[in-house]
Amino acid sequence: MSEIEQILSAYSQKFNAGLEQYFSASDAPEHRAMAAMRYSLMNGGKRLRPFLLHETAALFDVAYETAFPVAASLEMLHTYSLIHDDLPAMDNDDMRRGKPTCHKAYDEATAILAGDGLLTYAFEILNSAPIPDSEKVTLTLLLARNAGALNGMIAGQVLDLYTDSHQDFANPEAVIKHTEELKTGCLLRYPCEAGAILGKATAQERESLIRFSRNLGIAFQITDDILDVEGDEKLVGKTLKKDKAQHKLNFVSIYGVEKAREIAANLIAEAENLLAPFGNKADKLKMLSRYFLTRNH
Amino acid sequence: MSEIEQILSAYSQKFNAGLEQYFSASDAPEHRAMAAMRYSLMNGGKRLRPFLLHETAALFDVAYETAFPVAASLEMLHTYSLIHDDLPAMDNDDMRRGKPTCHKAYDEATAILAGDGLLTYAFEILNSAPIPDSEKVTLTLLLARNAGALNGMIAGQVLDLYTDSHQDFANPEAVIKHTEELKTGCLLRYPCEAGAILGKATAQERESLIRFSRNLGIAFQITDDILDVEGDEKLVGKTLKKDKAQHKLNFVSIYGVEKAREIAANLIAEAENLLAPFGNKADKLKMLSRYFLTRNH
Repeated sequence: MSEIEQILSAYSQKFNAGLEQYFSASDAPEHRAMAAMRYSLMNGGKRLRPFLLHETAALFDVAYETAFPVAASLEMLHTYSLIHDDLPAMDNDDMRRGKPTCHKAYDEATAILAGDGLLTYAFEILNSAPIPDSEKVTLTLLLARNAGALNGMIAGQVLDLYTDSHQDFANPEAVIKHTEELKTGCLLRYPCEAGAILGKATAQERESLIRFSRNLGIAFQITDDILDVEGDEKLVGKTLKKDKAQHKLNFVSIYGVEKAREIAANLIAEAENLLAPFGNKADKLKMLSRYFLTRNH
Repeated sequence: MSEIEQILSAYSQKFNAGLEQYFSASDAPEHRAMAAMRYSLMNGGKRLRPFLLHETAALFDVAYETAFPVAASLEMLHTYSLIHDDLPAMDNDDMRRGKPTCHKAYDEATAILAGDGLLTYAFEILNSAPIPDSEKVTLTLLLARNAGALNGMIAGQVLDLYTDSHQDFANPEAVIKHTEELKTGCLLRYPCEAGAILGKATAQERESLIRFSRNLGIAFQITDDILDVEGDEKLVGKTLKKDKAQHKLNFVSIYGVEKAREIAANLIAEAENLLAPFGNKADKLKMLSRYFLTRNH
């Protein structure tokens, strides 16, 4: 394991232990959705988004515990999007991170409700954070917009689902960038902006962190597309080569693997420069950025 | 039309006009879910929950405009629950209020995303209300809990879906009451409590309004069960006699129509008494309560 992989592993262990407080053991029949929520939430994610949030907040010396409910609520929202994405009517995936998806482990109705439950719980937990009410309101609005159907993640899901019928766009690169900025980018941007808000960052610092997160988001998607072509299914933990099978446009299908890798490297170099003003407090974020280029799962 | 039906009709016209502000016309492919959200939201509901919220707030002279985003967000959340409830994996309903359900008018993936979008938008709009941040946080927590999987609407949906396998409960009346308190009751309780919060009600006033909403909720469900047996499908606008076909327990299957009607009448009489301290400011709420007993759709 590389240094950043060790850091991420230690982080996710601590983070997962914290998540347990939101789920008490219950055999009550009405808590079937809660059990499914817990199943998917604890299903071994890398916790990249909470890590980004905690590390961005740490640039401004925000305590781990203060940022925790904000990070936890984001991971819940991210997990709801995976559960609904995996449904038969959407991507129809049976496996996620090497384990049965929620609707396979439970059933479709329970998976729909578990997704709904995590989305709802996210807003509850965010609003229980030990931060001023004004920050709760700001973060709730920001999270809802980044996750929403107007200009957020859901709009990106829609674009992604209906890309097939829009392959005649004059500028496919612009369509892909826009899709990814919405579908993946919004939930990578939010933690960086939320960290800045928790840290009472200046407007300029906040803007730098947003630009950092944008570069990171596109680079993340490019490496995802490369993994889809070149990855090892056992390591990645999901069905690969789906984009090609479904004739989906992505960065690799437009640029080829080598050029795509070069674009990602440039984005990450620029991202690291944006962190320069934060000195060595940003070391882990820089390591994470470089890791995005070399990850194999 | 009776007086209360006229009042409700005028209210929903005004309310619907206000909802339009949240949806701008867009042909952008990424706004397919927004269009589906609007389709289901504007699909002719009676707006009982927003009406309850506005009328409860009006007991304390809260302005219509102040309460509007709070009422609008509740109706969005209610509509999301209907869209997901209608899905093939859940109740599998083709018609709602005499029109095709969301997944019939669009498709299943869009309906899942439209539900997700309305749930997300609800929290955004609630947090854009012209009220103090402290009230936004209180209402966000209250809404999330009432809609949630632990002790809210989603827990009720779970109980409702899995009632079949639990018909061996020793006390079916208690199971049904608990199911309905969660599934239907939470979103009828929330507007009354939210109105009290917006109105800065005393603890005693708030408690009275919560008790009022509980009685209303059970009475509403009883008349729903009676309509399922005796109603006219054209008036009700959905497939009836489904409970019987699915061997579902409900108030009518336990008590029979006559006894169920009597229980509802007693609940409503008690609900009206709880409103007595508010004098004639509560006239519309009293009319609404009595209407619950006689409605035919």
